[in-house]
Amino acid sequence: MAFEIKDRDLLGRIGKINTKSGNFETPTFMPVINPFKQIIPARKIFKEFGCHVIMTNSYILWKNLDPTQEIDIHHFLDYPGVVTTDSGAYQILVYGSIEINQNDIIEFQKKIDSDIATILDIPTGWDLPRELVEYSVEETIRRAEIALPQLYNSDALWMGPIQGGRHLDLIVKSAKKIGEMPYHIHALGSPTEVMERYLYTVLVDMIMAAKKNIPPDRPLHLFGAGHPMMLSMAVALGCDLFDSASYALYAKKDRYITTRGTKKILDLKYLPCNCSICRNLSASELKAQIKSERTRLLAEHNLNVLTGEIKTIKQAIAEGTLWKLLEARTKGHPSLISALKRISKYSNDIEKNKPGFKGHGISYYDYHSLSRPELTRYQRLLKENYAKPEDVETLLLLKAPPTTPYRRNEVYVQFELKLLKNSENLHICFYSVPYGCVPADLSETFPLSQYEIAEPLDYETIKYAAKNLSEYLTINLHKRIILLIGKEDLDYEIKKVVLKIAEEKEVKLQIIEDSRPWSNKVLEKIIQLLRSENR
Amino acid sequence: MAFEIKDRDLLGRIGKINTKSGNFETPTFMPVINPFKQIIPARKIFKEFGCHVIMTNSYILWKNLDPTQEIDIHHFLDYPGVVTTDSGAYQILVYGSIEINQNDIIEFQKKIDSDIATILDIPTGWDLPRELVEYSVEETIRRAEIALPQLYNSDALWMGPIQGGRHLDLIVKSAKKIGEMPYHIHALGSPTEVMERYLYTVLVDMIMAAKKNIPPDRPLHLFGAGHPMMLSMAVALGCDLFDSASYALYAKKDRYITTRGTKKILDLKYLPCNCSICRNLSASELKAQIKSERTRLLAEHNLNVLTGEIKTIKQAIAEGTLWKLLEARTKGHPSLISALKRISKYSNDIEKNKPGFKGHGISYYDYHSLSRPELTRYQRLLKENYAKPEDVETLLLLKAPPTTPYRRNEVYVQFELKLLKNSENLHICFYSVPYGCVPADLSETFPLSQYEIAEPLDYETIKYAAKNLSEYLTINLHKRIILLIGKEDLDYEIKKVVLKIAEEKEVKLQIIEDSRPWSNKVLEKIIQLLRSENR
Repeated sequence: MAFEIKDRDLLGRIGKINTKSGNFETPTFMPVINPFKQIIPARKIFKEFGCHVIMTNSYILWKNLDPTQEIDIHHFLDYPGVVTTDSGAYQILVYGSIEINQNDIIEFQKKIDSDIATILDIPTGWDLPRELVEYSVEETIRRAEIALPQLYNSDALWMGPIQGGRHLDLIVKSAKKIGEMPYHIHALGSPTEVMERYLYTVLVDMIMAAKKNIPPDRPLHLFGAGHPMMLSMAVALGCDLFDSASYALYAKKDRYITTRGTKKILDLKYLPCNCSICRNLSASELKAQIKSERTRLLAEHNLNVLTGEIKTIKQAIAEGTLWKLLEARTKGHPSLISALKRISKYSNDIEKNKPGFKGHGISYYDYHSLSRPELTRYQRLLKENYAKPEDVETLLLLKAPPTTPYRRNEVYVQFELKLLKNSENLHICFYSVPYGCVPADLSETFPLSQYEIAEPLDYETIKYAAKNLSEYLTINLHKRIILLIGKEDLDYEIKKVVLKIAEEKEVKLQIIEDSRPWSNKVLEKIIQLLRSENR
Repeated sequence: MAFEIKDRDLLGRIGKINTKSGNFETPTFMPVINPFKQIIPARKIFKEFGCHVIMTNSYILWKNLDPTQEIDIHHFLDYPGVVTTDSGAYQILVYGSIEINQNDIIEFQKKIDSDIATILDIPTGWDLPRELVEYSVEETIRRAEIALPQLYNSDALWMGPIQGGRHLDLIVKSAKKIGEMPYHIHALGSPTEVMERYLYTVLVDMIMAAKKNIPPDRPLHLFGAGHPMMLSMAVALGCDLFDSASYALYAKKDRYITTRGTKKILDLKYLPCNCSICRNLSASELKAQIKSERTRLLAEHNLNVLTGEIKTIKQAIAEGTLWKLLEARTKGHPSLISALKRISKYSNDIEKNKPGFKGHGISYYDYHSLSRPELTRYQRLLKENYAKPEDVETLLLLKAPPTTPYRRNEVYVQFELKLLKNSENLHICFYSVPYGCVPADLSETFPLSQYEIAEPLDYETIKYAAKNLSEYLTINLHKRIILLIGKEDLDYEIKKVVLKIAEEKEVKLQIIEDSRPWSNKVLEKIIQLLRSENR
């Protein structure tokens, strides 16, 4: 297997890609190296930055080398790791055409012994008329097909690019067609303009259109993605590989990358970082360097940030806290928050792939956390797999106690003992944010038992809980509901939805309202209600 | 001057503290050094970590040294920077009492040549009966007073601690009394338990109670604060100095600090960092070290994160983006989100101190961004300093164009030309999120001209805009309003509040509703309305 999946979180995974020059772990960032001008030497990138795979451009190499010369790309670059080559497709995008055909650039990549190589796809440019986008998709599919015989006798891994730009239906078509062919890795083309324009919601849709239509056991590469601000989001949506020359290009333009955006070094009075470069250098010292040295220092810092972010993402996958990381990173730019909201459209896809409990409780910060897959899963399982006990007529719906698991709450334990003594024909559920309805018998399971939520609650979170409670009550219809509520915003919203259901479904509803819902006085009231019915 | 303020953002500031052993910049983190066991040697902390001020405990030194011995603390620690000493008050907190009185520990600190020294205050423990808290406040005030004659002939700077625990009225009293005395630095005592219990909302209140009642030109130290997750918040509320042994204590317990929380190294499969320690070390290599070496490595990593965060905070102050940093850091723990919400209580205090425009537009992520001081300021200035033109009867209230500055929007420019041709007796305002009402003649000023906001909008943000528009319209009452709205959630909310005001105040209201509010068709409608009135 070229790709082994070792761990998962959301749609992200930690994997291993095996090539003829060794293996490397994903998700990974492949620094793009100019074969003729290495701002950071490739060997140093391997040894000191721990990048065990890099990317370079085979077309630039082909164009500038004597065609009779025998070269090995690893030797040429002085790089001991895995070398991925692009085919010149990017140059088609920039210059309109290139001086080599697919057949020859494929043979050239084989000749230089590239480990991961690319067919000559036609990139989808930005804002093209649909006909031209269709052409790029169709022609890339055609080329992917005719290339196959050439690839069978190669020991490299081959990338099958997916085109379509912003046209999601074309991405779907492209992904399906290329996905049917035996490519080792798929690469989503041309997102660079989308990223430069901060159209991260569009990027979310593009990635998902590709991801859902390629074989799930193949790695997905996102061409040209090189900002740490968005890597965790792309990984969460299932991207495994990234390549960019951003670390060097930004450096040349005196740009300093951080996980919360990019800064001009002229604006820097302090270096907001403690990487190997920034720890012993002040902002004014950096600014005072001659251009070439400044570029090198900036490139090294930028690459440190990128490789550090990849490690951060991998650790988050291992822990099962990728969503938390994602939420933090969206504070880099408002467009990332918009993208986070867009991700909620794909909650079901993400939930399906999210592995189970990894030992970490859940942090609910605000309504953004409502798209968490654990919540989506809980609501789904509650609908699909849970039903109230059949012969029980009365639902006792209680405000959840302030500690988890609710059922282990000291006061509640006493409550329950006395209640069940007074009535056996009783089903007990809690209402709580963000879950909505939590049957007492489920309350000791994950994620109901282990979570923290920020207070005061926001409106969206309260609404979410009320809506989900309402759905539960509609599916699990009781003849009688005793509702114990407090006097806060949440309680009023809950009261509203329960009243509505009681009216519509003709349920007998008795409400006890108390600002201290967990007092003995309240318990007595409930017992009275239960007894009065039993008599 | 012992303290010079060089830059500001929110209540945070970049300052310089001048001592007899040199100066250092604030905000700063002072690593706490055990004088007899330095996990990282003090000299290395100065040279390699760039910490130009450290803190150590004079009581431990006094207790373990021969009293006749002459020592200089800088020489003893082998530290070339500024040394701050605590007095043993922390030991009172932990052990109940100590073996030295205030007079002697003050003289001892003078003798060892401490640069910043501390009187022997009585720390407020956690959850004490109010009488005991009152005692700690009263006794600390008394000691601060009687210490004064001893301090006049000292060339050290002296810290005057503020006590009171969670009792805000006692903090206020303490801060006022100690603030009247000529101490160089004030220190808010005993927040450690509050932080350990993640009671960050309580911490916000405690800091603000102190901050608002000490002289604003004195530095405020927060005792025992040592987690990068909360430093930006404390700085934003006006804290200048922090000290903690956290970097070493966490290391001893195999804890790995990040800006998004603390991790057990057993849970680490990857080191989510690229500091000088983590760049060339894998998680398994770290775990395989012998205990003492592992502790040193972890302590160095932890200190790297802390000093890196201080630089990040300083850069944010310099740029005027401290609020943005604060928002990002609150994703470290739900209790920090709760604290962020609590900060909105102090919007006016923060707004008053926030300097003007520093060249950066504003990012509105979600409703948390509504507490930004720029917004508070805009609403205040709109109320205090702006009034509609006196003799104008008609308000044309338009949905804001999609680009900023609104008034420079190409379509709007044409709109305005034609409108003003048709009616001179017209005042034009825009409605927009999050601002509410933006008079056209203000729309080219900061922050109205430079901001980005995440879409779709959340309910709280829409409500905020509607409320502020409503307030503007109530203060600036027109006889007639022509309202041009679209058909989105925001538009319906705006329509609701304008209808309400029109009804209550008997304003003639004409509404044009169009899903494309910026078309020529709509412009014609408005002109017709204007003409019909003029005739």
